[in-house]
Amino acid sequence: MTDIKTHIATSDTTSITVRGRDLVNDLMGKRSFTAMLYFLLSGHMPTDSQTQVLDACLVTLMEHGWTPTSLIARLAIDSVPTEAQVGIAAGLLAVGDVFAGTMEGAGRILEAGITQADKQAYCRGVVAEHRAARRPLPGFGHPIHKPDDPRTPRLFEIAREAGCKGDYIALLLELSAEFDRVLGRHITINATGAMAALLLEIGLAPHVMRSIAVVSRSGGLAGHLAEERETHAARHIWHLVEQNIPYEEPEAESR
Amino acid sequence: MTDIKTHIATSDTTSITVRGRDLVNDLMGKRSFTAMLYFLLSGHMPTDSQTQVLDACLVTLMEHGWTPTSLIARLAIDSVPTEAQVGIAAGLLAVGDVFAGTMEGAGRILEAGITQADKQAYCRGVVAEHRAARRPLPGFGHPIHKPDDPRTPRLFEIAREAGCKGDYIALLLELSAEFDRVLGRHITINATGAMAALLLEIGLAPHVMRSIAVVSRSGGLAGHLAEERETHAARHIWHLVEQNIPYEEPEAESR
Amino acid sequence: MTDIKTHIATSDTTSITVRGRDLVNDLMGKRSFTAMLYFLLSGHMPTDSQTQVLDACLVTLMEHGWTPTSLIARLAIDSVPTEAQVGIAAGLLAVGDVFAGTMEGAGRILEAGITQADKQAYCRGVVAEHRAARRPLPGFGHPIHKPDDPRTPRLFEIAREAGCKGDYIALLLELSAEFDRVLGRHITINATGAMAALLLEIGLAPHVMRSIAVVSRSGGLAGHLAEERETHAARHIWHLVEQNIPYEEPEAESR
Amino acid sequence: MTDIKTHIATSDTTSITVRGRDLVNDLMGKRSFTAMLYFLLSGHMPTDSQTQVLDACLVTLMEHGWTPTSLIARLAIDSVPTEAQVGIAAGLLAVGDVFAGTMEGAGRILEAGITQADKQAYCRGVVAEHRAARRPLPGFGHPIHKPDDPRTPRLFEIAREAGCKGDYIALLLELSAEFDRVLGRHITINATGAMAALLLEIGLAPHVMRSIAVVSRSGGLAGHLAEERETHAARHIWHLVEQNIPYEEPEAESR
Repeated sequence: MTDIKTHIATSDTTSITVRGRDLVNDLMGKRSFTAMLYFLLSGHMPTDSQTQVLDACLVTLMEHGWTPTSLIARLAIDSVPTEAQVGIAAGLLAVGDVFAGTMEGAGRILEAGITQADKQAYCRGVVAEHRAARRPLPGFGHPIHKPDDPRTPRLFEIAREAGCKGDYIALLLELSAEFDRVLGRHITINATGAMAALLLEIGLAPHVMRSIAVVSRSGGLAGHLAEERETHAARHIWHLVEQNIPYEEPEAESR
Repeated sequence: MTDIKTHIATSDTTSITVRGRDLVNDLMGKRSFTAMLYFLLSGHMPTDSQTQVLDACLVTLMEHGWTPTSLIARLAIDSVPTEAQVGIAAGLLAVGDVFAGTMEGAGRILEAGITQADKQAYCRGVVAEHRAARRPLPGFGHPIHKPDDPRTPRLFEIAREAGCKGDYIALLLELSAEFDRVLGRHITINATGAMAALLLEIGLAPHVMRSIAVVSRSGGLAGHLAEERETHAARHIWHLVEQNIPYEEPEAESR
Repeated sequence: MTDIKTHIATSDTTSITVRGRDLVNDLMGKRSFTAMLYFLLSGHMPTDSQTQVLDACLVTLMEHGWTPTSLIARLAIDSVPTEAQVGIAAGLLAVGDVFAGTMEGAGRILEAGITQADKQAYCRGVVAEHRAARRPLPGFGHPIHKPDDPRTPRLFEIAREAGCKGDYIALLLELSAEFDRVLGRHITINATGAMAALLLEIGLAPHVMRSIAVVSRSGGLAGHLAEERETHAARHIWHLVEQNIPYEEPEAESR
Repeated sequence: MTDIKTHIATSDTTSITVRGRDLVNDLMGKRSFTAMLYFLLSGHMPTDSQTQVLDACLVTLMEHGWTPTSLIARLAIDSVPTEAQVGIAAGLLAVGDVFAGTMEGAGRILEAGITQADKQAYCRGVVAEHRAARRPLPGFGHPIHKPDDPRTPRLFEIAREAGCKGDYIALLLELSAEFDRVLGRHITINATGAMAALLLEIGLAPHVMRSIAVVSRSGGLAGHLAEERETHAARHIWHLVEQNIPYEEPEAESR
């Protein structure tokens, strides 16, 4: 026996218990998937407001058209058509820092700043530190959406309507103002930055944020697998690459 | 240019469109994640009843305690702690036929049978065919839950309360009666069999069923990653295996 | 304690033992990677001839230019640049039946036929069975290489030079003759069919054949990751797909 | 058309070309898998000495008994028995920094130090920097092997026998001496640190080192999949965890 336990779930012949609650009688048809996700991530059942906010975040990240995740999922399912989980999992592997994972970084910055007495000074420090280290400030910028990520104001509106206190959002807006001031131009708060603030507003910690992005994107990839079954885009993608990124003899080996 | 298109999503500088709808103004905070999943899988926005049923199915499959999926996710995140998507994706790879993927098989049987005039004869044929081929009948049996999978009656109840017509459920119950008759004993309709019927009741096709199981389980695995961060079970698991499945010299090579 | 053991490897403070042999003193620098692969798959150290043949098979499957596996690996590493194992593993997930996994199927056919007294009758039966079931005959055909897969005669030559008995190759050629006769035209034995015969010639069973393909392809994908670091093809691939498989509004929902 | 190319491979109806060489006539049966791996990673065909050293590194990392990678591979293949690539790929996902990926970090330190005039001062700086930042020094230490990783002296011996110049090895030994001096006790150079030096000796860059570990481990996992087919350890592992890491009710929710 080890000295550790799990508090997540167990089952016996007649029941399944999830964090102390009976799945069949107390959870199925009584709590939504989104509420259950909150519960499993935090150990607390969410209020209706918290569920609304988490649900909006899940919807926000499901789809963005052609992305590395959807390309990979489609190429994979085309090769292993009987295993949908391989298609989705392959695509999810690409939910990394570069495209969808800066929520945690933005979350850490806001989490550390919320307890600071002088928030303006904190923001100045954060911006200066990132500029000096030539590191991108997580939660800001978008390659397509300009001048602003259209999802951001809507996310803030959803949080307001749900009755969130707004302290993390205010801090994020302060950080944005400082960033624009230092850059001399406006750079948008992107959806992952806004969501980092919203998830902190509803009591979720930065370390669960990428998992939330993964759950969200799994739903989007399920949709891509369904379309792939009809259109078989993977074969076209392969052909496009062969035509447009052709083979060329390497230079003679230098040894 | 290829001659194929995608109908899923696109974006420009100021908007994101998902299957013809504006994400920011028409979907975020207006449609739930579960409704969006239905929409992306089928191309149709679900009714409230359909959303309820899909949501209950998503909740049902999130957790079952220690499973190969949760073991793998925990071992993986322990090795790559900064990449939550790797932990979740690794676990999801194990959502295969053996443990969570018989929904599609059960769905195909029900889908083919629903148009049969003589359903009893159809059921007799299905049971006989599987017995003769020594293949397990998908949707039936459970290693732990006896005499019945407790999730099954609750799933049927949820479908009833949501106003589902009940034809697929009736067919499944007919198949169950025939199976018991032939076996000479009762074998439970398991949760994946029941969910195959429920998903058909709400208009979803068998080929999307495993994807739904994957989305559901991604939520459960997110919870396991959160607990792993606290308890580091992976190290204990490794130690348990080393102690209990020890190395033994192989027999002398026969060549 | 369970009642099972592992015979693969163990370690203590001063040594590592692999299948009864000391890694440091008896294997490192004394046995090649290819010989070790044979050893781990079969429990027997291979002869030099067997190693030559397995090694040629490993080389054969490493590369074929742009394939779903290399596309996926490149898209993945671009999203998670610090985790090479994610890039390679994502690509390997696509080594399925469709593109690289028919070795096992061809292997099973040859393994079952080698003990038949009347091999010609066996081949007639196999071809007829696949034709009737409208199933492709594993080990035959290639979308690009016509009239013959150029790797196949070279593989047979390598086996001959290594001193293989040739019984499985002869059976495969017999099957090919029958297939051509029934089709009324020639269809090539492809490299995976030829390799199935070669691996059986050297004493490896069908159930290890896809693993061999995976090890081989892992080497090729390592090369693609190295090139991706220089050329960043992934961004171009993404752009190509957006331009050539554009979004189109779906038809109005029918509900 | 994009403006980028690939230099890796292409094929037409009658041939396959890999980095300018004809696969069938110039590579199959003429170059080993290990030599081909070097070629694909670096663009140069290796000398026999370089091949020997790379091959020894590949052999070194194939196996270490029960590890997160082999546990995951076995649990995965048990759930998806028909897809060997899923078993191997799932296991490979865990080849991260924690267990097998510090080769690159050690490689970067040696690569940066080799051009320093005063190597002793460089080593002092590296050790001091890591101590101050409380970061582990990559390439040093092992949880099991004490006082020394037995693979390390053998790796240095193999490099010597292959005629390597020895500059990187000398630098690593200098770093080791400095580390021991600062710690006041001996900490071993582990196999990944030794291999980082060896791979630099033969002209391979740090950024390909983790890929090499992945290719090596793919061979080991292929062996685990073969044993799993016989012993089905996965079911026992699952049972062990259920027994030894049991469910316990969580504390009452604090809200």
